[in-house]
Amino acid sequence: MEEPTEVQERREGRDEGEEEMDVVSMESNFEDEVVLPWKEQLTFRAFVVSFILGTLFSVIVMKLNLTTGIIPSLNVAAGLLGFFFVKTWTKLLEKVGILRQPFTRQENTVIQTCVVACSGIAFSGGFGSYLFAMSKVVASKSSEGNNPTNIKEPGLGWMICFLFIVSFIGLFSVVPLRKIMIIDFNLTYPSGTATAYLINGFHTPTGAKLARKQVGVLGRFFSFSFLWGFIQWFYTAGDDCGFARFPTFGLKAYANRFYFDFSSTYVGTGMLCPYIVNISLLLGSILSWGILWPIIDGKAGDWYSADLPKSSLHSLNGYKIFISIALILGDGLFNFVTVMISTANSFHKQLKNKDPGLVTTASNGGASSSSSNRNMNFEDRRRIEFFMKDGIPLPYAIAGYVAIMAIATPILPRIFPQLKWYYILVMYLIAPALAFCNSYGCGLTDWSLASTYGKLAIFVVGALAGSSHGGVLAGLAGCGVMMSIVSTASDLMQDFKTGYLTLASPRSMFVSQVAGTAMGCVIAPSVFWLFHKAFDVGSPTSEYQAPYATLYRNISILGVEGLQGLPAHCFQLCCVFFVAAVVLDLLKCRLLPKKWAQFVPIPMALAIPFYVGGYFAVDMCIGSLILYAWERVNKAKARALSRAVASGLICGDGLWTLPASVLSLARVDPPMCMKFLSAATNAQVDKFLAG
Amino acid sequence: MEEPTEVQERREGRDEGEEEMDVVSMESNFEDEVVLPWKEQLTFRAFVVSFILGTLFSVIVMKLNLTTGIIPSLNVAAGLLGFFFVKTWTKLLEKVGILRQPFTRQENTVIQTCVVACSGIAFSGGFGSYLFAMSKVVASKSSEGNNPTNIKEPGLGWMICFLFIVSFIGLFSVVPLRKIMIIDFNLTYPSGTATAYLINGFHTPTGAKLARKQVGVLGRFFSFSFLWGFIQWFYTAGDDCGFARFPTFGLKAYANRFYFDFSSTYVGTGMLCPYIVNISLLLGSILSWGILWPIIDGKAGDWYSADLPKSSLHSLNGYKIFISIALILGDGLFNFVTVMISTANSFHKQLKNKDPGLVTTASNGGASSSSSNRNMNFEDRRRIEFFMKDGIPLPYAIAGYVAIMAIATPILPRIFPQLKWYYILVMYLIAPALAFCNSYGCGLTDWSLASTYGKLAIFVVGALAGSSHGGVLAGLAGCGVMMSIVSTASDLMQDFKTGYLTLASPRSMFVSQVAGTAMGCVIAPSVFWLFHKAFDVGSPTSEYQAPYATLYRNISILGVEGLQGLPAHCFQLCCVFFVAAVVLDLLKCRLLPKKWAQFVPIPMALAIPFYVGGYFAVDMCIGSLILYAWERVNKAKARALSRAVASGLICGDGLWTLPASVLSLARVDPPMCMKFLSAATNAQVDKFLAG
Repeated sequence: MEEPTEVQERREGRDEGEEEMDVVSMESNFEDEVVLPWKEQLTFRAFVVSFILGTLFSVIVMKLNLTTGIIPSLNVAAGLLGFFFVKTWTKLLEKVGILRQPFTRQENTVIQTCVVACSGIAFSGGFGSYLFAMSKVVASKSSEGNNPTNIKEPGLGWMICFLFIVSFIGLFSVVPLRKIMIIDFNLTYPSGTATAYLINGFHTPTGAKLARKQVGVLGRFFSFSFLWGFIQWFYTAGDDCGFARFPTFGLKAYANRFYFDFSSTYVGTGMLCPYIVNISLLLGSILSWGILWPIIDGKAGDWYSADLPKSSLHSLNGYKIFISIALILGDGLFNFVTVMISTANSFHKQLKNKDPGLVTTASNGGASSSSSNRNMNFEDRRRIEFFMKDGIPLPYAIAGYVAIMAIATPILPRIFPQLKWYYILVMYLIAPALAFCNSYGCGLTDWSLASTYGKLAIFVVGALAGSSHGGVLAGLAGCGVMMSIVSTASDLMQDFKTGYLTLASPRSMFVSQVAGTAMGCVIAPSVFWLFHKAFDVGSPTSEYQAPYATLYRNISILGVEGLQGLPAHCFQLCCVFFVAAVVLDLLKCRLLPKKWAQFVPIPMALAIPFYVGGYFAVDMCIGSLILYAWERVNKAKARALSRAVASGLICGDGLWTLPASVLSLARVDPPMCMKFLSAATNAQVDKFLAG
Repeated sequence: MEEPTEVQERREGRDEGEEEMDVVSMESNFEDEVVLPWKEQLTFRAFVVSFILGTLFSVIVMKLNLTTGIIPSLNVAAGLLGFFFVKTWTKLLEKVGILRQPFTRQENTVIQTCVVACSGIAFSGGFGSYLFAMSKVVASKSSEGNNPTNIKEPGLGWMICFLFIVSFIGLFSVVPLRKIMIIDFNLTYPSGTATAYLINGFHTPTGAKLARKQVGVLGRFFSFSFLWGFIQWFYTAGDDCGFARFPTFGLKAYANRFYFDFSSTYVGTGMLCPYIVNISLLLGSILSWGILWPIIDGKAGDWYSADLPKSSLHSLNGYKIFISIALILGDGLFNFVTVMISTANSFHKQLKNKDPGLVTTASNGGASSSSSNRNMNFEDRRRIEFFMKDGIPLPYAIAGYVAIMAIATPILPRIFPQLKWYYILVMYLIAPALAFCNSYGCGLTDWSLASTYGKLAIFVVGALAGSSHGGVLAGLAGCGVMMSIVSTASDLMQDFKTGYLTLASPRSMFVSQVAGTAMGCVIAPSVFWLFHKAFDVGSPTSEYQAPYATLYRNISILGVEGLQGLPAHCFQLCCVFFVAAVVLDLLKCRLLPKKWAQFVPIPMALAIPFYVGGYFAVDMCIGSLILYAWERVNKAKARALSRAVASGLICGDGLWTLPASVLSLARVDPPMCMKFLSAATNAQVDKFLAG
């Protein structure tokens, strides 16, 4: 009796396969769904849940800030926990029979956005880095700059005030970029996309066959990825332990940060990103860690003093930061200028045609014109329609930005007298360009380089102010302003991508972001204040050593020496790479025919491994390889399911960060360490262990 | 243009699937093949190649014997290299146009058998264990037994003589068991099966679609498994390094030898063995290492002295060896007796019917009568036909056995005066039963427990002789006799399984085994003699420490204390387990209906992890799990391809032992160690490494 069943199963499998080839659109499952007006997406319960989760995540982030300094991304956990909170609540109400408003995916996105905005402040507020680096405790660790002009003790009042001033500016700079990044450039924003797939999956109406299959695949890979994170945890007692430190290509490659680190997040990210992005990342890591840094390292003692600490910006580390920033700025500014010119052109045209519609509010018309060369299917059309419906007019955004600038310029120097008002003005003028660069890079590769931009600001502002005028403190404060802007810009753009894919109104997203940011500006400093009062934060004997605060202060101390302190040939190299980035962009967008242009690497993607290392590029290329192989074997299936697989991988690992953080808070240490030693070291260790 | 191609591919795939359900027989591919008479399977070139490979493998095994003491199985490498040697040779001759006889799979099997028989002597000859343990160098490491009566220096003459006497006896005891093990019990012999699949794969005529697919799958998994072995190698600098030491279930389970060791060999073996075997192994490992040993370990100081060395047979180690042997003997003897009775019955019947045909030569008739309740298909019929065609008559086998016994009983005591002639006689009388047990266990689980039987012999013979009468030496010599018999018995039975599956004539196999054994009896001592003369073998400062020689001598020193030296309650426990084995067998074969009997564990399989540990049981259960899942998803495909997958996994890993051995001979050490440390130890190591 077995054979017929099998044949039947086989036939069923085939039918599904054929169906897949016709329908690959997720949005068609929601065709009957009524999307509520933007005001109704903002429910009271959403903000209550956001407040609870925002506080929870702020505590987690703060604790990690002050202990290890390494902060995982909590986007996915926010989306998921938000769903379970509200779902349980609505289920309860439904049973009692007093449910007034059903739980929609837009509301889910609103919660996720609000929580991310709120807990983001706990990171970008610099409590583990620049802000706490100003304190007496950290200053006393170094002889240089340990004087009253370069010290500012933490205080609840000024911190809240400072955060309110610097945190909203990123928000207003993001708004005008929204349409460019999400629709015109159609950037990936892998985390945002994965979160959206997760949220869509939760709210998928039962019945749709393909959707059921997609959600099933998502669930399976989500579980696998979560479990994999859990399994990895057991082997990570101590630094340099576990699968994330696996020297896949040997110890020498590992020392140059080139290895496969078994991160399902980045494998998933690689599956979502276009091939050229992943290949560019790989090329970048080979170019930098494989060729450039070894050469420069060989010049130690010649180009720069050989006995500087490794973190010093005057040694190899300086080349890494400045050259990568040069590449990023080259690419970012090229795109920024291109966008500005084309926007000005279309604005000019619209004025000529006497069409009073504003660029960002030019809803369907504008969107379809800019996307006219793309093949618009039902899904894209619907998404763009909703994304452009409740726009935030450009003049409002500009007005908001200018207003905050007007408040910040006189008030910030009152908090930090070392920070002159004209530094602030200049920073606020160039910030949108940098916010553009960071959002663009993040959209391509999922990496936010906020701390790299922050280090650049430390260097520039510190050098301008000089040591005697409190340059150390000025540099740190400048870092704060810069980091807040660029970090918020990329975080919120990820959320806009999520909103785009879940049909959430940009206006409700914006309100949610404002509310979340405001919550964060109060919650984060308060949580920090609790830790500060309760524990001996920053002391070398304490559990709360805040390691990055010391690092940031050291960078700032070295920064005040200014441009003459830059290592030899660094400036020239930066110029070369800046020009190279522009040339690559010109080749890609203007000079070469499309047939060849697609093979030109993207400078932004080339640049990211320059500082970070190539390990995640390896992960992402493996993701690409999997996708490529899958497409070769079964293109229809790969198309229908690869995003679900990738999202599952990203989200499962993302959720694991939550229990991992809780375990770390509860001081539950992993039982084992999987360690990798060279043969020689291993012989020594074996001897030592044998007694 | 893509879509149609895909549809076509899909349809093709379907056709193959349907075909698979009809044809799952490998042998049907060879239907047109003419199997040469047994004498023509024994070519001159086959013996030349065997001699070369036999010498090569003897050198490798000897080197490993004298350095690490851990010997990998070289069956697969023998089959493969034999193929490539002869294939190249015949291709060359074919090109020149003077090829007289094509290369057949039977000839391939003959080579493989001859090489295994030859290189097997390098292991079972005890040059790294019992034989060298008699030498002065090893004796001087211990104060006890360090006197002339308990020492015998190595000598080329007596070693060759000794080997000729003990090595052939196993051969003759195997011959009568052949039909019982291979046809009546239809045992798996996983290595033998895998080698046969490999050989069949090489010789598959082109054209057959399913065969092509099977060979393709075999090749893919072979490459994967080989590569996996290669990758693992990089992380194995030092002991306790690498994936094979992965504490998958935590360090506590690892200490009790319960972990997944990532061995593709055992995963493949698990796929070939019946479910009940793997489950029995798992049960056995839980029963012993999970329950029994911890309890007995807790009695240290009570049941036995707590300050004995771990290898002592008077401590926990004694319980492990004796209890496992009790279980094995219980099961083995039960089956042995059952077989004897039924053979005697059928012999009696045949005499009554005046049929002069002998039991083992009762070709088709006998085979089909004993297998009448099995569903005979074309494949089975053909295999049994060829396996029974050129039998070796039982009287010849008995005559050979008796002749060797008659030579050995007077001559062995001349080599070792400490070994009385009546010990030898007794050993030779009980040896066939033990050879039966070992072949049976090996057929079920792929484990040959020759060294365990050897240890039993050390203990029994040593105790009978007593320390003052050279008991240490007598024990070691007895170990040699016992190990040679049981080790040869299981090795050659594996080869018979290969021969059965490749339609090689048992008579040509037997001749090849005799030739190989004779080669080995000369080659192995000669190679040892070279090492002995060239290096300072056995010295603690030398690279050639022969660690197992010291271990065996220590066991023998402890053995002479006799039965009163057995730890408390050990004898009682052995009796309990012996009876338990018989009861389980009775339940399985006689008392329970088949419906329930299939769930009764096999005592032999229960016993093997008792001494070895559960890690390979975990591997094998994972193999079962994979097979089970595959059968659930697609039963037809699983049936058609699972053996090819399993064989690929076993053979790829098997071939990797060859380059691994060469690397070890060339003193190329792996570059890294993947180490697993507890959190506390890791903290210490980090401190030590930091200086």
